[in-house]
Amino acid sequence: MSAPDPSRLSLNTATIREKWGLAQAIEGCARHGIHGIAPWRDQLAAMGVKEAVRATKANGLTVTGLCRGGFFTAKDWRDDNRRAIEEAHELGARSLVLVVGGLPAGSKDLAGARNQVRDGIAAILPEARKAGVPLAIEPLHPMQAAERACVNTLEQALDLCDALGEGVGVAVDVYHVWWDPKLAQQIARAGHKRILAYHICDWLVPTRDLLNDRGMMGDGVIDLPAIRSLVEGAGYAGFHEVEIFSKLDWWQRDPDVVLSICKDRHARMT
Amino acid sequence: MSAPDPSRLSLNTATIREKWGLAQAIEGCARHGIHGIAPWRDQLAAMGVKEAVRATKANGLTVTGLCRGGFFTAKDWRDDNRRAIEEAHELGARSLVLVVGGLPAGSKDLAGARNQVRDGIAAILPEARKAGVPLAIEPLHPMQAAERACVNTLEQALDLCDALGEGVGVAVDVYHVWWDPKLAQQIARAGHKRILAYHICDWLVPTRDLLNDRGMMGDGVIDLPAIRSLVEGAGYAGFHEVEIFSKLDWWQRDPDVVLSICKDRHARMT
Repeated sequence: MSAPDPSRLSLNTATIREKWGLAQAIEGCARHGIHGIAPWRDQLAAMGVKEAVRATKANGLTVTGLCRGGFFTAKDWRDDNRRAIEEAHELGARSLVLVVGGLPAGSKDLAGARNQVRDGIAAILPEARKAGVPLAIEPLHPMQAAERACVNTLEQALDLCDALGEGVGVAVDVYHVWWDPKLAQQIARAGHKRILAYHICDWLVPTRDLLNDRGMMGDGVIDLPAIRSLVEGAGYAGFHEVEIFSKLDWWQRDPDVVLSICKDRHARMT
Repeated sequence: MSAPDPSRLSLNTATIREKWGLAQAIEGCARHGIHGIAPWRDQLAAMGVKEAVRATKANGLTVTGLCRGGFFTAKDWRDDNRRAIEEAHELGARSLVLVVGGLPAGSKDLAGARNQVRDGIAAILPEARKAGVPLAIEPLHPMQAAERACVNTLEQALDLCDALGEGVGVAVDVYHVWWDPKLAQQIARAGHKRILAYHICDWLVPTRDLLNDRGMMGDGVIDLPAIRSLVEGAGYAGFHEVEIFSKLDWWQRDPDVVLSICKDRHARMT
């Protein structure tokens, strides 16, 4: 297998969010020769959208995704997603990543939540198409079904894409999908048109927290070169976005060190 | 939906394993009017198989399953599973539950592990058939793919059953499968011939530990009556086995209190 193209590395700012704001993350990417960035909306709001647009352009960065729209099972989903689409448009983001939301408070109706998600995406899709913002449904690991996303497999996400039509695809995050017996089949089914983002990190053994104990590439058990091969085999030629939620380790380190290690591990372990 | 049949309640001894050995668990079931029990093999070894057979029979208990065979990716799998089949036979267990094993130490080859599991089950199946011990493949939650079981969905387990033929079925544990978008479809596919066990507990929000933070029925977000309806709708008429790994809560309580609450929650919340 060929080595990953180093120019395809992107930084999802969740990876260094405890110590850097978005302005620092943009400067950090430029300093480390990382050409892609994917900001979160709270950081974007803190920096200001216009200034973020200016700084990413000035530093030649591609915005590989905006995190996040979604949470269609929450009360304010309509306005919040409208604003997210506008921001993604202004940033020229390659997609708006949808973390679709879990069970509504007090509910055990997972099928109902899934219908709400489908209807919610359908409702915002015309605006997203008009704004030229592809919507990337991110299937989240089944352990996050209750609290964050009731779309939990690539197959389920692609079934949604089939139902919704143009303008919707998927974000493939290795952390969420590495275990799936149908991974190869469903990545092939998705093809390059529907793979809108590719997120990397690693699954640690043991995993000490369901949300914030992701590993750096190479420190866990995910066969990253094999999954990249599937994704690139399907025709995906976009960025490889490092997204590491790691309260117990990486969030505590100097972000410049984290970025150096990301670059090294991307080159050697993915 | 009709209420669950109280005579179908079974105790998986993992639920009270910190405070009771198997002999105490058998007496406890008899005292609380619980008619089924599913022991773990370490407890069985401590009590002695002959004495366990005598005590379960003397108390009129059905052995709804023996936990566990499997771990086909470990070194001693062959002999260990042979002994497990013998023990299940002696106990008259309704099935031997297979926790199939995760990645071999140092490996990232999930597809290879899955092939090892398939070959391992095929290798022990003739002995299991001869002993009249049905093998129940238990798909485990994807968050346990690396460490405990690389069979992670009901669909995957049933594909294995298709490949292996007679004498193999599945254990449906709500904790492992409740999130699955294909749950209804795959339970219907399994049918009553292949559903060899039905395990209940609940998924807590938040979940504080990947292995040992299961909830008592009614304390979490799983729609237990809905899943029982699917399972019984497929023709399953066996026991409802309570299996709660709960280091942080239930394992610390008086097992007699735990059993009382199991009975009450089974009647009202499942």
